[in-house]
Amino acid sequence: MTGLDRFSFNQATANNWPLADMVAGCAAAGVPAVGLWRAPVAEYGLGRAAKLVRDAGLSVSTLCRGGFFCDDDWLADNRRAIDEAATLGAPVLVLVPGGIGDRTLDAARAHVADAIAALVPHAEDAGVRLAIEPMHPMYCADRGVVSTLDGALELAAPFPADTVGVVVDTYHLWWDERIWDRIALAGAAGRIASYQVADWITPLPAGVLLGRGLPGAGCVETARFTGAVDAAGYTGPIEVEVFNADLWARPGPDILRDTIAAYLEHVVG
Amino acid sequence: MTGLDRFSFNQATANNWPLADMVAGCAAAGVPAVGLWRAPVAEYGLGRAAKLVRDAGLSVSTLCRGGFFCDDDWLADNRRAIDEAATLGAPVLVLVPGGIGDRTLDAARAHVADAIAALVPHAEDAGVRLAIEPMHPMYCADRGVVSTLDGALELAAPFPADTVGVVVDTYHLWWDERIWDRIALAGAAGRIASYQVADWITPLPAGVLLGRGLPGAGCVETARFTGAVDAAGYTGPIEVEVFNADLWARPGPDILRDTIAAYLEHVVG
Repeated sequence: MTGLDRFSFNQATANNWPLADMVAGCAAAGVPAVGLWRAPVAEYGLGRAAKLVRDAGLSVSTLCRGGFFCDDDWLADNRRAIDEAATLGAPVLVLVPGGIGDRTLDAARAHVADAIAALVPHAEDAGVRLAIEPMHPMYCADRGVVSTLDGALELAAPFPADTVGVVVDTYHLWWDERIWDRIALAGAAGRIASYQVADWITPLPAGVLLGRGLPGAGCVETARFTGAVDAAGYTGPIEVEVFNADLWARPGPDILRDTIAAYLEHVVG
Repeated sequence: MTGLDRFSFNQATANNWPLADMVAGCAAAGVPAVGLWRAPVAEYGLGRAAKLVRDAGLSVSTLCRGGFFCDDDWLADNRRAIDEAATLGAPVLVLVPGGIGDRTLDAARAHVADAIAALVPHAEDAGVRLAIEPMHPMYCADRGVVSTLDGALELAAPFPADTVGVVVDTYHLWWDERIWDRIALAGAAGRIASYQVADWITPLPAGVLLGRGLPGAGCVETARFTGAVDAAGYTGPIEVEVFNADLWARPGPDILRDTIAAYLEHVVG
């Protein structure tokens, strides 16, 4: 299919689709890349998954996710995540910073900075780029204490850009009054490591995790975002990543078909 | 009761407590001020409500709410809200900007600026201060397109500070990486028209409106916020405003008692 050269299907968009079926479905549809998640990869087997994707001719745009630095075992777990990304051939490990935990907000943010510093040597050795994902402020307490692109860029700044970058995710950042300037800054600094797309729909469900929409379903100007990251110099994959309980209930091939259609019409259209 | 000289009980904290009972309960507890909402005031009768509160010796810290400029009748409705605030003796009308509606986000924000400009002369005539409330970004789509204190201050800037100010609400602003600097700026500009307090608790309920916590129940450093607005020169009422379905199910006097206790321990303690 034409127009898909930069498209990546994040497997969480079809969360119940078995990995092997998802890979076959993507390959058959002409999708060049997938974003993978650690749990289904581990379930299938890391080495097997790497071979499966490689044999299908797919590249892996990102591995989701490291981070959650609020957890006690964050260091060992993130080192493993870096190794898994390297095994999968994923150039980017997405870092979801994690919530406040037992700390104050300031201390939790400072801890994220320390944690990234601790991981950088291992990431450099493994050839995996760490991508700090600023999360929507509604996740600040329990999922991600880095709430803006500025915040992520400040955390990345002490390290080489090819080792630590940021994720521009439309779902997390669309509300920001200065988002366009911030994207330009991120691009000028060479820090955009991943670009992910989902739309904002209301009302939000309880827990606010599974209420994202396919591009075009909500109020986010997704094509404008694509234009902004492109203008900022980003030339990498464009990953659609939608967590939605209703979407997940549908067959994987249907989800992929609708995701591709939404991508072509609302993300690069 | 001592320590309550700046306390204001926002009536939405006990949403099911009839106005007359709420006023009597607050007066009996030594509460000096209340924040009122238009709907229960209208139900009781505007003139009657004004007399009720005045006869009880209570002052009205704010009237909630004007705004919702996405609605077709925003102009007439907000003019009425200003008049109601004047009748009640409320020095401040809280403006919740409203969501995107049929506009783009940029256009919706520009429309808020136009709407405030249109209301300023009437507010000046009525002696009511308009207070723009930046809303948590999770409300950007459907409730408030002004998402940061900076955004609210920019909207207020063209007008005299005693006519257009901003609301500092801990629930909406606690996640902001630069909130302390922004509060200092707001105070230096004389723009803090209202200070409201609620805590952030998880998980969020569906619709994300009724999931606030009493101060101390969540992760917000409410006493630090009080210190920040005080250091910024704010000397006005400290309103506790908690929307919580479980809290609302309890008897009004119990809610007031627990709110006062939370205020003394976690807001001014």
